[in-house]
Amino acid sequence: MTQDKVLCDIGFIGLGVMGKNLVLNLADNGFNIAAFDLCDEKIQEAMEQDKQENTTGSPRVYGCSSYTELISQLKAPHLIVLSVPAGAPVDQVCENLIGAGIQPDDIIIDTGNSLWTDTVAREKKYKSNFLLFSSAVSGGEVGARFGPSLMPSGSPYAWTRVKPIWEAIAAKVDAETGKPIERSKPGQVITEGEPCAAYIGPAGAGHYVKMVHNGIEYADMQIICEAYHILNAGLGLSADEIADIFAQWNNGLLDSYLMEISVEVLRHKSCDTGTTLVDLILDKAGQKGTGLWTAMSSLEVGCPAPTIAQAVYARSISSFKQLRTQACTMLKGPESVTLSNQEKIDYIAQLHDAIYCAKMCAYAQGFQLMKLAAKEHGWALDFANIAKIWRAGCIIRATFLQSIAHAYERNEDLDNLLLDNFFAKQLSERQFNWRKAVCGATMFGIPNGALSSALSYYDSMRSETLPANLLQGQRDFFGAHTFERVDKADGKKYHVQWSTPERKTVIIE
Amino acid sequence: MTQDKVLCDIGFIGLGVMGKNLVLNLADNGFNIAAFDLCDEKIQEAMEQDKQENTTGSPRVYGCSSYTELISQLKAPHLIVLSVPAGAPVDQVCENLIGAGIQPDDIIIDTGNSLWTDTVAREKKYKSNFLLFSSAVSGGEVGARFGPSLMPSGSPYAWTRVKPIWEAIAAKVDAETGKPIERSKPGQVITEGEPCAAYIGPAGAGHYVKMVHNGIEYADMQIICEAYHILNAGLGLSADEIADIFAQWNNGLLDSYLMEISVEVLRHKSCDTGTTLVDLILDKAGQKGTGLWTAMSSLEVGCPAPTIAQAVYARSISSFKQLRTQACTMLKGPESVTLSNQEKIDYIAQLHDAIYCAKMCAYAQGFQLMKLAAKEHGWALDFANIAKIWRAGCIIRATFLQSIAHAYERNEDLDNLLLDNFFAKQLSERQFNWRKAVCGATMFGIPNGALSSALSYYDSMRSETLPANLLQGQRDFFGAHTFERVDKADGKKYHVQWSTPERKTVIIE
Repeated sequence: MTQDKVLCDIGFIGLGVMGKNLVLNLADNGFNIAAFDLCDEKIQEAMEQDKQENTTGSPRVYGCSSYTELISQLKAPHLIVLSVPAGAPVDQVCENLIGAGIQPDDIIIDTGNSLWTDTVAREKKYKSNFLLFSSAVSGGEVGARFGPSLMPSGSPYAWTRVKPIWEAIAAKVDAETGKPIERSKPGQVITEGEPCAAYIGPAGAGHYVKMVHNGIEYADMQIICEAYHILNAGLGLSADEIADIFAQWNNGLLDSYLMEISVEVLRHKSCDTGTTLVDLILDKAGQKGTGLWTAMSSLEVGCPAPTIAQAVYARSISSFKQLRTQACTMLKGPESVTLSNQEKIDYIAQLHDAIYCAKMCAYAQGFQLMKLAAKEHGWALDFANIAKIWRAGCIIRATFLQSIAHAYERNEDLDNLLLDNFFAKQLSERQFNWRKAVCGATMFGIPNGALSSALSYYDSMRSETLPANLLQGQRDFFGAHTFERVDKADGKKYHVQWSTPERKTVIIE
Repeated sequence: MTQDKVLCDIGFIGLGVMGKNLVLNLADNGFNIAAFDLCDEKIQEAMEQDKQENTTGSPRVYGCSSYTELISQLKAPHLIVLSVPAGAPVDQVCENLIGAGIQPDDIIIDTGNSLWTDTVAREKKYKSNFLLFSSAVSGGEVGARFGPSLMPSGSPYAWTRVKPIWEAIAAKVDAETGKPIERSKPGQVITEGEPCAAYIGPAGAGHYVKMVHNGIEYADMQIICEAYHILNAGLGLSADEIADIFAQWNNGLLDSYLMEISVEVLRHKSCDTGTTLVDLILDKAGQKGTGLWTAMSSLEVGCPAPTIAQAVYARSISSFKQLRTQACTMLKGPESVTLSNQEKIDYIAQLHDAIYCAKMCAYAQGFQLMKLAAKEHGWALDFANIAKIWRAGCIIRATFLQSIAHAYERNEDLDNLLLDNFFAKQLSERQFNWRKAVCGATMFGIPNGALSSALSYYDSMRSETLPANLLQGQRDFFGAHTFERVDKADGKKYHVQWSTPERKTVIIE
């Protein structure tokens, strides 16, 4: 290639499914890409697919055979997007780019599922070599191709350069309805609507927010799975019957991408057996870490997030298949219950409300976690904006997010979604049905950890007094950990001298 | 002091409540102690208390005014016990001891609540300077004085030197009944019975096991607190009435130190107001980290421990008092339920079974966590022994631990306590009452996250099929994460090409 060749706008490294689709999305939006992957075939595949889909007449994706060639094909200052596995590979590529002559004013955007603390460390580490910017990408392969939800963070200067590109390729939402604007064909470009890309904050903030997104996603999926389990094993409904119920729910309050794809999965007949696919899938859940990172972070910052943690644990329990196969012969459950048709109909309505309420609590947990983490790390997160960029493109997309955005628009300092009038009302109106659904599952013998942990969370939040008074008494008894007193309200630390006969109360300085 | 003075057996650094009591315990058992603390007063206090309690005629505790003096007062090779706060202070003391001339064959025993990974790192760090041994100590100040439960770990050579000392000062148990042998008076020494001190494994193993002990303790306390909350706010019983019920339970299956002290706390009348103390204690729980470390570790090693995590979250929720005070006016609960006397009696019996079952599940979670962590770290933990050393001296002490020891004696490779015939039978016989108790609390509107998460854990363990099949279908749909098939059982990874019209199933290599 010669010097007078048109230079590319963006360099792209890592052409796996996500990377290739992001490249094609960028190309559709008018950007020229210099693309590199360690695997030659993947470069060829990306160029081939671009050739097939490209209607502009001039090539949009230039395959490069080295880091040096990649840099030489780019306009300076260079902008390079990485889509490589989180962890060591990111550092490897960074080192290679330094070797290939990247400059301090060049920008590298890490779009992988990096652990947010790694991102913080990397920004510092490479400060003198280049500007590390990062952007979480949600929406899987389809999102990457036709509009993902993007959570960029890092230097605000870098964002001024990344912004027009990110807003172009992001999913778009109709501002009024909060619904995604459809885009599903190669070459198609959406210019109207609100883009699902907003600057989140300093280094790491974007990946942190994406991590919490995934934690919420775990909870949302587990809630749906519990409902499926109850309807299937508790009420004896088939996958098709459950798909019909879910499809109906998906037209109402529970409208969401996850509910929509659950219907698709439940209805699907395997092409080889002709029977219902879901009945053939082994019940051992995989996980890649973001859910458990969210739960761990919630423990670290002291944010109650029991429903997210329950979802993570549900996946681990599922992985102990052999143990369960043994245990199920030893551990007794309740006698089986047979419901009349009317009782089934009533129960299904209660379950609907339980899902909706548990979902509100799971989101409340995730948003409170972001709020507490932001406080700890000095990030100024805009929660209305975060809810907005999750309305399309990402896995938890749902019009429900519009309601969350409104809650934070009404009060940007809201400590917890449950304190918003809209959500408080939604929950209050449905809490009784929620209780009945949880009790039903409990008496059927079907595990319901997500639904019930959310209900205990709700009941804890509305308990002005919790039994932590006894707990503090116990701790003072065995460990002299002291307690405060409600009748004094002086913030002082009291201790009872439990091991003396008088058991006097003293104030500990 | 002159050279021909009798040299001491043990050096002791850190004379806080725990340290001072350990020193007096050592002294009662015939060891001479050279003691040091950065605070002069504490040295004086320890010597003063020794003088009052000492009936031997010769001094047992020698106060030292420097690290150098401490070392000079000890028999070589030196054995020095640390009782200083976990974290930086431990390293500070280690560095000071190096400066004061400690030798490579000297042993330092860290008895603080160190994070187990810190202990592993420290053993390596100080390898050329001295032998770092560590021993978790459970039982609070009373345990330290009259017999703690000790969880030593580190170099086996060091253990040969520490063993006689540790076995002397540890709590003792009657091997037959599994009950603690009473020791509560200064000067008293117990020589019969099984000591609650057993070598756990390599560096860090002891602190890890202690950490899990504390995680179980959190769960056990939370289960009792939920029962108190339900009886108090749900059934309208007073603290005294609840104390009577707990006292009765403490004579049966639920016999434990935590139940015993709950009765003491509930019955106690504050000396200044004359009214029930527990009603005056502010319901904001404190925590020092070991519970949340346990929950975090369970997430990391992929061990389901939902009841332990629930207990940690219950403490965090309690700390958001202001938020709850606001939320309780906005979030509706159920209409209040009035039970007849007979219904109350029945419910109390169901609650008893629920506590017992939830407790078994919490312990099952803790023991499985230790098993999985041991596998990961290459520790050969002896679970029967661990259960045995928890029968006395520590906070979760209870004859119940004898049953756990027996389960692991029957099968040392037991994967989960629920697979032991005894526990399976206990749970199977009581699961129905447990369900009714959880449903009752749910309909009263009282949070019961520990009781219900344990029940969902139980129901998950006895579910040969969990809804993770739908979850894997969802994951394959949005992220091409693949699934295994029950009808093939070939361990291969299947994927449906969801975004193509044919939706073919393919095998991913």
